[in-house]
Amino acid sequence: MDKLVVRNDMGAVARLTLNNPSNLNALSDAMLAALQAEFDQLMDDSSIRVIILSGVGKAFCAGHDLKEMTAGRKADDGGRAYFKDLFNRCAHLMMTLPRLPQPVIAEVHGIATAAGCQLVASCDLAVAAEGTKFGVNGVNIGLFCSTPMVALSRNIPRKQAFEMLTTGQFIDAARAEELGLINRSVAPGDLQKETKSLAALVASKLGSAVKVGKSAFYEQIQMPLDQAYAYTGSVMVENMLVPDTAEGISAFLEKREPDWDQ
Amino acid sequence: MDKLVVRNDMGAVARLTLNNPSNLNALSDAMLAALQAEFDQLMDDSSIRVIILSGVGKAFCAGHDLKEMTAGRKADDGGRAYFKDLFNRCAHLMMTLPRLPQPVIAEVHGIATAAGCQLVASCDLAVAAEGTKFGVNGVNIGLFCSTPMVALSRNIPRKQAFEMLTTGQFIDAARAEELGLINRSVAPGDLQKETKSLAALVASKLGSAVKVGKSAFYEQIQMPLDQAYAYTGSVMVENMLVPDTAEGISAFLEKREPDWDQ
Amino acid sequence: MDKLVVRNDMGAVARLTLNNPSNLNALSDAMLAALQAEFDQLMDDSSIRVIILSGVGKAFCAGHDLKEMTAGRKADDGGRAYFKDLFNRCAHLMMTLPRLPQPVIAEVHGIATAAGCQLVASCDLAVAAEGTKFGVNGVNIGLFCSTPMVALSRNIPRKQAFEMLTTGQFIDAARAEELGLINRSVAPGDLQKETKSLAALVASKLGSAVKVGKSAFYEQIQMPLDQAYAYTGSVMVENMLVPDTAEGISAFLEKREPDWDQ
Repeated sequence: MDKLVVRNDMGAVARLTLNNPSNLNALSDAMLAALQAEFDQLMDDSSIRVIILSGVGKAFCAGHDLKEMTAGRKADDGGRAYFKDLFNRCAHLMMTLPRLPQPVIAEVHGIATAAGCQLVASCDLAVAAEGTKFGVNGVNIGLFCSTPMVALSRNIPRKQAFEMLTTGQFIDAARAEELGLINRSVAPGDLQKETKSLAALVASKLGSAVKVGKSAFYEQIQMPLDQAYAYTGSVMVENMLVPDTAEGISAFLEKREPDWDQ
Repeated sequence: MDKLVVRNDMGAVARLTLNNPSNLNALSDAMLAALQAEFDQLMDDSSIRVIILSGVGKAFCAGHDLKEMTAGRKADDGGRAYFKDLFNRCAHLMMTLPRLPQPVIAEVHGIATAAGCQLVASCDLAVAAEGTKFGVNGVNIGLFCSTPMVALSRNIPRKQAFEMLTTGQFIDAARAEELGLINRSVAPGDLQKETKSLAALVASKLGSAVKVGKSAFYEQIQMPLDQAYAYTGSVMVENMLVPDTAEGISAFLEKREPDWDQ
Repeated sequence: MDKLVVRNDMGAVARLTLNNPSNLNALSDAMLAALQAEFDQLMDDSSIRVIILSGVGKAFCAGHDLKEMTAGRKADDGGRAYFKDLFNRCAHLMMTLPRLPQPVIAEVHGIATAAGCQLVASCDLAVAAEGTKFGVNGVNIGLFCSTPMVALSRNIPRKQAFEMLTTGQFIDAARAEELGLINRSVAPGDLQKETKSLAALVASKLGSAVKVGKSAFYEQIQMPLDQAYAYTGSVMVENMLVPDTAEGISAFLEKREPDWDQ
């Protein structure tokens, strides 16, 4: 049996590939578990400094597995307990992304809908192939994308998010870039080259600095201004006291390349 | 006497029209009361699934009624009690918009200034005629648009909001679209066609899903990430258990149109 | 010895100029103190209604003084106490900007990096010369821009901020304008003319209204919607009771210029 999520490491960059093209890489119970397992392993893997998340086939990810969800209705409670557990597992997965020490780049092509669009919004960075379609289109089948909107509405302006949610219409990669949902769109043939290049750039930085910075980014963004400064000030102090940072600053002042232990 | 706010229903879409063109549809005490009364009625009207808010005459809405406010100064307290009550009533109206179960589309033309611009910002969606001017220009007469900025600064970026507030200058519909204050601008002759089309699209969705989704949108956007997921997860569970949603998902899987009771 | 920060008043507009070009106007201990002293004086200077913040030389401001920080490592504690104090002083300076009663316009040219980019983000308004480069590039030397990101991530969308922080790459003035970091970019030869014109426009408004409005802007933006309305409603009541505001509204109704005491 093929693995649902394939991991390939290239130096300090791990590429995770959603590998269930016949199901449009839907977030089935098995896919959620497989992806969570990879993230959990990467959480403590200090050899990896950047993660690329991609999918094979026609879609990056088409959201939840509707057949499986429908089968869940056969339980005595009509599926209530199963659905509750499912959305808990899915939310846990989405919240794992900002908690990972490594920046995660979504490499998006084809279709990113519903929880698939949420996955893009939950990554730290995203690059998409021109022609990719993004949607939170659950409303079209009577299931409002209430959890996907948590991530979406923290990426793009309010009225534009509301329109996507209530019309169920798609936006293309160019529009996604304008709105801030992705960092940039590129020709489909350049997609892997672009994410590799971005990953290599981020991986070339001091890993300990990127790690504390990523964590602080999501902490401070939810704080009032004075708390945010008190918190990030202490992060800066610790960052300054890291020997590799001392070396990085010295190298800069001496106009040479840093000699980092990382 | 003509009604200050006219309601016309077209199927599941209610059109509310501010109807005091000689006063540029200013939010006088009477206009605030008339509009609030319409909203209060629509709050419990399950036959209506989308609301369009428009105005007749040269302006969509030019803000507060300055003559009436000036008359209020004649009270013993210089108007303090009246002003307090006025801004309470106005804020209540603005906060009614996100609380309405139906999405509200602002159909904007001519001028939307001060509390009129706030009305646009407070609607869920907005379409404007090219050439429409938007402003929070109270500063020009010494009255900073402090309440309008609550809605404005939750729609557009910070520095751009601050500029509008402190310069009193107008932006046009194209710029309002760029900044996220409106969803799109169209040729004046196409304005009604566009809002009708958008309303029809939203009204075609499952009403119960849109209703819970709209409510959840504004709730979650004010929460920290983990609370937002806990909350919307429970919304998704309830949404899944609605019979019409089960039918919507089954219809999708069976590649047929849903047969909704709504 | 030349002053590190030069103040020139033109009527109600104070121009502050960072004046250490040989050090790219870095925020050294002395520069932080000099700039804080100017702000503290302006805090109570009711003759000044707008502040322009500019720099001389090749850079607007290149961030912290890395040589001075490196020297700080020689202390017994490796610099911990010094760094803690330094980031406290810097955060206090950045938080002074929104607390100043006068709007502050950043007039940016050349380079605005790290804490220099934070300075731009912390101003109320910003105009930049075409060709200006903005970056939060501390990551390049192993020091993540954790405090600068507090201001940056409150100005521009999340993924775009994250990219700047983790790649260390610069954006130009045109991109800064698109993202919302600055209000506009102009030809380098027009920079001073543009900031003067913007300052004159804001200074022509009623000072008391701008003062309460600026303060309320940053207060309300951190509040839930209902609190924000309760708070700004009371600000509006007080604003209405200012005699100059009464005159401003009367003048508008009588189609004449206001005769303000301000």
